[in-house]
Amino acid sequence: MADPIRSGAGAASRRRFMQQAGAGSAAVAAASLGLSATPADAAQAFDATYDMVVCGSGCGGLASALFSRWQGNTAVILEKAGSIGGTTAKAAFWYWVPNNEAMKKAGIADPKPDFLKYVARLSNPQGFDPAHPRFGLTQWEFDMCGAIYDSASPAAELLAAKGALPYRHVPDVPDYFAELPEDKAPKGRVLVPAEAIPSMSDGGLVAVRTMSTKARQEGIPIRTGMRVKKILQNPAGRVIGVEAEDELGAVTRIRARKAVIFATGGFTHNVELRKNFLSGPIYGGCAAPSNEGDFVQMAGALGAQLRNMNYAWSCPVPLEKAVARDGSMSGMFSVAGDSMIFVNKYGRRTVNEKLQYNELAQTFFEWDGARAEYPNLVRIAVWDQRSQDHSASAEYGRLIVPPGTDDRHVIKGATLADLARAIDERMAKYAGVTGGAKLSADFASNLQASIARFNGFAKTGKDLDFKRGDRVVELLFNGDVKEEPGRSNPTMWPISDAGPYYAALIVPGTLDTKGGPKTDTHGRVLDARDQPIPGLYGVGNCVASASGRAYWAGGATLGPIIAFSYRAANAAHAETASAA
Amino acid sequence: MADPIRSGAGAASRRRFMQQAGAGSAAVAAASLGLSATPADAAQAFDATYDMVVCGSGCGGLASALFSRWQGNTAVILEKAGSIGGTTAKAAFWYWVPNNEAMKKAGIADPKPDFLKYVARLSNPQGFDPAHPRFGLTQWEFDMCGAIYDSASPAAELLAAKGALPYRHVPDVPDYFAELPEDKAPKGRVLVPAEAIPSMSDGGLVAVRTMSTKARQEGIPIRTGMRVKKILQNPAGRVIGVEAEDELGAVTRIRARKAVIFATGGFTHNVELRKNFLSGPIYGGCAAPSNEGDFVQMAGALGAQLRNMNYAWSCPVPLEKAVARDGSMSGMFSVAGDSMIFVNKYGRRTVNEKLQYNELAQTFFEWDGARAEYPNLVRIAVWDQRSQDHSASAEYGRLIVPPGTDDRHVIKGATLADLARAIDERMAKYAGVTGGAKLSADFASNLQASIARFNGFAKTGKDLDFKRGDRVVELLFNGDVKEEPGRSNPTMWPISDAGPYYAALIVPGTLDTKGGPKTDTHGRVLDARDQPIPGLYGVGNCVASASGRAYWAGGATLGPIIAFSYRAANAAHAETASAA
Repeated sequence: MADPIRSGAGAASRRRFMQQAGAGSAAVAAASLGLSATPADAAQAFDATYDMVVCGSGCGGLASALFSRWQGNTAVILEKAGSIGGTTAKAAFWYWVPNNEAMKKAGIADPKPDFLKYVARLSNPQGFDPAHPRFGLTQWEFDMCGAIYDSASPAAELLAAKGALPYRHVPDVPDYFAELPEDKAPKGRVLVPAEAIPSMSDGGLVAVRTMSTKARQEGIPIRTGMRVKKILQNPAGRVIGVEAEDELGAVTRIRARKAVIFATGGFTHNVELRKNFLSGPIYGGCAAPSNEGDFVQMAGALGAQLRNMNYAWSCPVPLEKAVARDGSMSGMFSVAGDSMIFVNKYGRRTVNEKLQYNELAQTFFEWDGARAEYPNLVRIAVWDQRSQDHSASAEYGRLIVPPGTDDRHVIKGATLADLARAIDERMAKYAGVTGGAKLSADFASNLQASIARFNGFAKTGKDLDFKRGDRVVELLFNGDVKEEPGRSNPTMWPISDAGPYYAALIVPGTLDTKGGPKTDTHGRVLDARDQPIPGLYGVGNCVASASGRAYWAGGATLGPIIAFSYRAANAAHAETASAA
Repeated sequence: MADPIRSGAGAASRRRFMQQAGAGSAAVAAASLGLSATPADAAQAFDATYDMVVCGSGCGGLASALFSRWQGNTAVILEKAGSIGGTTAKAAFWYWVPNNEAMKKAGIADPKPDFLKYVARLSNPQGFDPAHPRFGLTQWEFDMCGAIYDSASPAAELLAAKGALPYRHVPDVPDYFAELPEDKAPKGRVLVPAEAIPSMSDGGLVAVRTMSTKARQEGIPIRTGMRVKKILQNPAGRVIGVEAEDELGAVTRIRARKAVIFATGGFTHNVELRKNFLSGPIYGGCAAPSNEGDFVQMAGALGAQLRNMNYAWSCPVPLEKAVARDGSMSGMFSVAGDSMIFVNKYGRRTVNEKLQYNELAQTFFEWDGARAEYPNLVRIAVWDQRSQDHSASAEYGRLIVPPGTDDRHVIKGATLADLARAIDERMAKYAGVTGGAKLSADFASNLQASIARFNGFAKTGKDLDFKRGDRVVELLFNGDVKEEPGRSNPTMWPISDAGPYYAALIVPGTLDTKGGPKTDTHGRVLDARDQPIPGLYGVGNCVASASGRAYWAGGATLGPIIAFSYRAANAAHAETASAA
């Protein structure tokens, strides 16, 4: 039998889709991309019918389909890529679940008002007001954040109880702003798939495996290679299904009696949308390569409001892999090494290298309005043999990688002067995508000075320029370093005055974007008048996040996704069946 | 006779609109905001018919209507506000016209490839490539910038020749990045209305007067208080008119035989759009208060693509007026005073105060990812009696204002300690809109240190921290300062060690936004497939600018607006009349 993910319950009907494809493809050629079908279209020839048609097979799609199925609905999952799991399959799959059952058992209080204060403080920092009834959030933001609090834990418990996603609690993982006075439960909100390895980096693979296995057991077909290209509406404007195209261009029309639920990811891999909406220049990201903003365009054509289009779940990424659109690329969630610094093209250290990844990525966007340039758009990580020997790792997107792994991004030099020459050569190759960024004439001497100053900080454990290692989240992502008994700050150690030296080029990127059609707290996609487009739902990174610019904690992506999948499935279950 | 702007040729038909309002208002109640009319609606009861219906009475609307009229078309202008001129009436109305006739007469060469290189360098700095055939721009960006080069000068000449907008050349005004090697014509591209005063600050009033006078002479009615709320399409999808609502809620339906041209400004005054699209937190701006993003929402509902939604024509603004949504507010185009600095809430000087306004505004967005705050979101301008006496002005949004003018934004103190206390009190009043921003405990001592360091720089004329006064554009906007024979840097003078002292609070703002529906080079609004929505045009800040983040020069707003008004009018003139 073939890959169980691609066959199983769905294989027979997938073959049927293929056979019927001829008639459907004429319809798609005649109709405008993304526009509603005419009533005549809608009444004709569906290739299959389900209560719920779920688009996307990452966590949001799998969870939405499972929650729907457990209420007695039929469901199908359509996945554009050739394999299942989307961005989830690449993730560590921490999931941030406020007031979860494990916290309760451990006696950790996490009252709703305090949770909302913490998220408001970070999502709307310029408008945060502890005295305001919604802490300065808009009603929509407040309600969406409240829905996460209310539903993430019941959703996680149900997934666990059904065997779709057993979890373990990781009580020591702090929120990303654990030091803020507004964070009254700085640890305890993070869960991971029970079978994840101790470092938790494979959580996504575990979750996709357990959730898709459960989906198949429940009779939910998962169709890969099926790109949804059209949302079908009946004459009354209710969404009643989709048209999808397979790898060979054959078109399938699938009827949704109750709802179409999109969970198709963001627009990380749509260069045009990125450039015209995101708040800074992004070079790519580690979202699944199929995350091209399809839902932004399809729902936009139905009149959906777009919201939070300016922000992304951000992280630095290695330049070469980002430019190559390498689908295997990980974001740099952990910046490895103690005897390691970042400098810019002027050889200057301009950032705390251990800043949490979402915040670190923002610092690459700093604009020099006199020179008309982004001085930190390409940064150079520099490390010595010590960090190479003791901090190499293939996990969490670290740039210091073990011998025998892909190290094409690593630049080497026996001396700092050699290293600078090699960096210069590498940057010249990429000049066409960096606005001609190259090392300044005084790079090597500035680099020497930057290292000397850093080494002084490393000796005392106090980074007087950027406070490296001062915050608990920086220790969480520090990775392995050579043990040095008694030192106070494990994130810093003097860089050796003897080579060899290593370097790598870093640019800003995303896990995925945060903007898209606005939904209500039940995942219903809203039109310009804040009215639901009947029958159309969205969850996850394909719709607008109410988090604004904030990355509240590890798992702040997947915890809310599970919550909204649960809420969307519940609301869709209550829909009356539509007329074609 | 009443205000000529509000009566004249249009008064009679305006009264007719009012009488017929009853029937129309039922239609608007029944139909969805922003959705197309049904065929039955469209076939019925238009209150008036013109070849062109132009929405907005700023420069883009007036010019589009005039250019249309001069080709023999009838046209009407619908203005949402109670008076005409939009943001234009508040502007200095410099207009940036590459390769203009005055340059040619003066022997200043401005070849098209060099012009395109300069705009590409600034609009897409991270992708600029002098070796690329489009210098790294997308085809659309390249074509749009080329259209500015091709048409701004013919458009300006025609407006001048017809007496609608006589101009004078200001050969000494530099581009905002005149020092860049890509700028081969660093001076000479700026024109201003001929009758503007020597400081040129009243150019917008002059232009609105001369252009609207000409429009009335040409028989173009200008209807104020008419908010377009609906774009009407015929059954084939062609735009054939609009529905507008007056101040009393009465609805008028106006037929456009050839085209509807929007020139209604951006979304500066739509808090929701600002927050969800712009690249940083904006407190408001000096666009006309009626610039609420109406066209983004109406054209979005017709399937228009949105582009460049992340950027704005930016400028700092005074906190109090921005929060009050004071329609009289000017952006801070000129930061007055030599014995004056900006500090943040920590008392630290973090920017070159004389940086050109668009670039200066960006620096307020800097994010501190460890503290989770914008440390420079509210800056405090501090000056002494010298600057108060010698640099006060009511022009260009300067904060140092003359005696007898509105100085409610000015905070005063006999000593620096007094001043700090007064600043603290003022900031406390605004805590609810600044995320609780308040002065740090060490503000007063840091302010002393910042002044001492600045005073050292002022004595030598060299700002070793931020290079204040090094660039020619900074001198352009320096304003009046006390003459000091022989000094090298007129932007700096030591701040007195004796009071009184003055301060004002500054936040980031916009002239107006830069994003909206994408058009082609003829102003035709494009759908998701890059096809024109038939009959629908847009020019100015209501549609997407191809400038990306760049503010190329003074007048880089109005020069392109004139060019695209000309091109849109020419293309619309060539349309065949539509069937209702």
